[in-house]
Amino acid sequence: MRLNIEVELDYHFPVAADVLLAVEAAPLPDQLLLEDLLTVDGAGPLRPIAGEDGIGRRTWLNAKGPFRARYHAVVDLSRHIAPIEGLAAEPLRDLPAEVVPYLWPSRYCEADRFEAFVERRFAGLSGGAKIIEMAEWIRAKVDYVAGSSDASTTAVDSFVSRQGVCRDYAHLLASFARAAGIPARLVSAYAWRLDPPDFHALVEVWLDGGWRLADATRLAPLEGLVRIAVGRDATDIAFMTIFGEARMERQSVTVTRVGE
Amino acid sequence: MRLNIEVELDYHFPVAADVLLAVEAAPLPDQLLLEDLLTVDGAGPLRPIAGEDGIGRRTWLNAKGPFRARYHAVVDLSRHIAPIEGLAAEPLRDLPAEVVPYLWPSRYCEADRFEAFVERRFAGLSGGAKIIEMAEWIRAKVDYVAGSSDASTTAVDSFVSRQGVCRDYAHLLASFARAAGIPARLVSAYAWRLDPPDFHALVEVWLDGGWRLADATRLAPLEGLVRIAVGRDATDIAFMTIFGEARMERQSVTVTRVGE
Amino acid sequence: MRLNIEVELDYHFPVAADVLLAVEAAPLPDQLLLEDLLTVDGAGPLRPIAGEDGIGRRTWLNAKGPFRARYHAVVDLSRHIAPIEGLAAEPLRDLPAEVVPYLWPSRYCEADRFEAFVERRFAGLSGGAKIIEMAEWIRAKVDYVAGSSDASTTAVDSFVSRQGVCRDYAHLLASFARAAGIPARLVSAYAWRLDPPDFHALVEVWLDGGWRLADATRLAPLEGLVRIAVGRDATDIAFMTIFGEARMERQSVTVTRVGE
Amino acid sequence: MRLNIEVELDYHFPVAADVLLAVEAAPLPDQLLLEDLLTVDGAGPLRPIAGEDGIGRRTWLNAKGPFRARYHAVVDLSRHIAPIEGLAAEPLRDLPAEVVPYLWPSRYCEADRFEAFVERRFAGLSGGAKIIEMAEWIRAKVDYVAGSSDASTTAVDSFVSRQGVCRDYAHLLASFARAAGIPARLVSAYAWRLDPPDFHALVEVWLDGGWRLADATRLAPLEGLVRIAVGRDATDIAFMTIFGEARMERQSVTVTRVGE
Repeated sequence: MRLNIEVELDYHFPVAADVLLAVEAAPLPDQLLLEDLLTVDGAGPLRPIAGEDGIGRRTWLNAKGPFRARYHAVVDLSRHIAPIEGLAAEPLRDLPAEVVPYLWPSRYCEADRFEAFVERRFAGLSGGAKIIEMAEWIRAKVDYVAGSSDASTTAVDSFVSRQGVCRDYAHLLASFARAAGIPARLVSAYAWRLDPPDFHALVEVWLDGGWRLADATRLAPLEGLVRIAVGRDATDIAFMTIFGEARMERQSVTVTRVGE
Repeated sequence: MRLNIEVELDYHFPVAADVLLAVEAAPLPDQLLLEDLLTVDGAGPLRPIAGEDGIGRRTWLNAKGPFRARYHAVVDLSRHIAPIEGLAAEPLRDLPAEVVPYLWPSRYCEADRFEAFVERRFAGLSGGAKIIEMAEWIRAKVDYVAGSSDASTTAVDSFVSRQGVCRDYAHLLASFARAAGIPARLVSAYAWRLDPPDFHALVEVWLDGGWRLADATRLAPLEGLVRIAVGRDATDIAFMTIFGEARMERQSVTVTRVGE
Repeated sequence: MRLNIEVELDYHFPVAADVLLAVEAAPLPDQLLLEDLLTVDGAGPLRPIAGEDGIGRRTWLNAKGPFRARYHAVVDLSRHIAPIEGLAAEPLRDLPAEVVPYLWPSRYCEADRFEAFVERRFAGLSGGAKIIEMAEWIRAKVDYVAGSSDASTTAVDSFVSRQGVCRDYAHLLASFARAAGIPARLVSAYAWRLDPPDFHALVEVWLDGGWRLADATRLAPLEGLVRIAVGRDATDIAFMTIFGEARMERQSVTVTRVGE
Repeated sequence: MRLNIEVELDYHFPVAADVLLAVEAAPLPDQLLLEDLLTVDGAGPLRPIAGEDGIGRRTWLNAKGPFRARYHAVVDLSRHIAPIEGLAAEPLRDLPAEVVPYLWPSRYCEADRFEAFVERRFAGLSGGAKIIEMAEWIRAKVDYVAGSSDASTTAVDSFVSRQGVCRDYAHLLASFARAAGIPARLVSAYAWRLDPPDFHALVEVWLDGGWRLADATRLAPLEGLVRIAVGRDATDIAFMTIFGEARMERQSVTVTRVGE
């Protein structure tokens, strides 16, 4: 599948502020970047750095006044989404160092507080089957309500309020997985057929020695995802972290399939 | 300074459980390991992995029944502790990728919630001088009370209760630093002259392009610290993470200066 | 049913401290006190005051050193427990002033945070049938685990941890009821056949113009309850509130049925 | 001092909803109501009930579609505000039953969590002098920022964020007072010279056997306050509690001094 991605971010910065952008598609074996261009007006020099875990790219910049960022990419996806149901969880004592952090609770994923719930509710299942059941539970019990959460909402908050958006679904799934001893990380992505189009957030779980996509929202097919960044939770994968004040004036994300 | 370190961990595991140990001194330029031996009885094969950020070593194992771990090391410390007061904070837009995660809030360091307090209370200072003032504030306002916190206590909890132990002092300092845009990470360490002797936790802040030690407790001289592990907060640096049940039967840490 | 109640509270107060005791059975139409005697050694003069909402009795005292309280009562219960299933909730706009506070969230019953969950999970039911379903849900989803909560545990905590004791079950039920617009208050009580014997906590909900007992634990029959105090949550009904330090040395509650 | 009070509340209720209004000035010895009229369009019959603690009046109603409430009052204030500095706290064991609830933590006043802070920061002072110092601390450390809090903000939140509005200042002061064993309740009021004009919230503390006004905001003179309602925290004294959905269209409060 070939996707065309267009992002427009128009902001206004009353005072100069440092900004970390994470909007570029990650170059990965299953997502080949045919075209890929980030342009920014209204900011000092762009300073690219690697993404968390060495996956993808981020860009530091200093913005002042009118700010206009455009990202254009054409991506060839050759992802084979194998069913995870039969995949085993790796014994904890075999987890590699770089996967270990994704066992821990994080700012928005208080995995430690869900241990009794997870042990009880998802007993009898393991590995991929357990993750699938967790995702089903979340989708069945939580209402997707735009605007129902904000930047401070944690998995515990969403568990209680039973409302959220993709970020909250992902925090819940990551929290449940970690509480069960299955490493899980957040992923930001462009998502074909996501409606309304926007940045998407979902989860990767570590099963059978590799990271596997899981999306409790089921709002977009996994085959049409273009990953941007990964991390422990929403803090690591925000598409734009502003260290100061800014006013959003216009923002759009467009993902369209193109002929191959 | 040359230090001799002896650790004894005697536990009982009623059921087999995976365990992640992080008790070995990290081999670092300013702490040279002359002797270094971890021995474990009552566990399956030891599986060493790197520590977070590639610093130090951790060990996976599977424990059952009586468990007895011993760690012995002799470490030569050649640390020059320069005063941090005059060190500048690095502009955010110049931070390298591997330092960026230490800007974010984490499970036990809700840096995002302290922004207004930090901006107001520590205004007018910057860089190392700001960190020193933060550490002084914490030491002045928080009582060191053994047993006043537990594994679920966060920086917000300690800020309100005004009580804590080294872990909580470190969470507060890291939270304040991050809220001010200064990267900060937790460090576990052996500490010469810490009384009573125990694992210690403190902070490293990123100033002038490098990590600098800062300890809001002032319970032990920075020159006598042997670092073990680093990470976002207490979850990353725990000396022993038990995935299951265990009973602690005896635990001791001894750090003594030896002739050179 | 006639019950004999014996309470023994032996404490030690290193420093003089004010204490509020709420251990006396409330004189109520459905629980007639045949015998009723509170004696206290090791405290200054007893100063009786009414309980919250004018129900029952509390006693202020000042304790120092060895403290020994004994409460003895013989109570005739003539309670007719009608099934609440068919009872209607009263329209909010008809609620009397003294019932209104029991609509609000309180320290340990964050009713406001459960509104979406309650609306969704218990939709289609109303009044007593809704309360019964709520109590069933709690009993099915929460494990009764002695020692799993403490004085700071709230309904949100218990909802997440899925563990608790009678106090937590009552906080959950009261929170759910209030979130559905049904007034609910906490009740402390002596409970025949509660095993192990102890002070019990449960709920009264306002249905069809009156307060009706509901106990999500089902640990003791409602017919054998002797109410002590009522209030918004555990703070109002604590059997002993100590304004200072004390060491519990011995504490026992005995409730036995006696011939009539 | 004679004050004229005009309140206009224009709302729209898409679906019929019960509403509890608490906007009428309380008839109290130190505030004499010369004129006093509540009129409501767009609601079923008004059902007056007493306020919490028997102070003041509340009104139940059922609103649908356009809703328009007007309240007009002329109040003679003859309040003598004696300095509280020299007033003693009453020994806990002498507190009357109706004052006891104001010792407890409540939904938005987690007094229990501030005990160590209060004991340490306000040591050496007692009674009214302690309350004054608490109010000064709050005014010095917290920024009054319109819009910085919402209906879910608690005293702990405000203590950490160091921002708030009158409601938050009152929650902090009540929490500190209760943590020090001084009963404190929230009071809603009309406030002469409050700018911008709005419903005001402050605190009454129990000193020397009576309730005494205390306002950590110092935004309006205590002599010009017309009390509406009292209660444990914001939940009890809200001027309008809506059990359903509504859209605020216009709302104004005017308090002007009139010739006597």
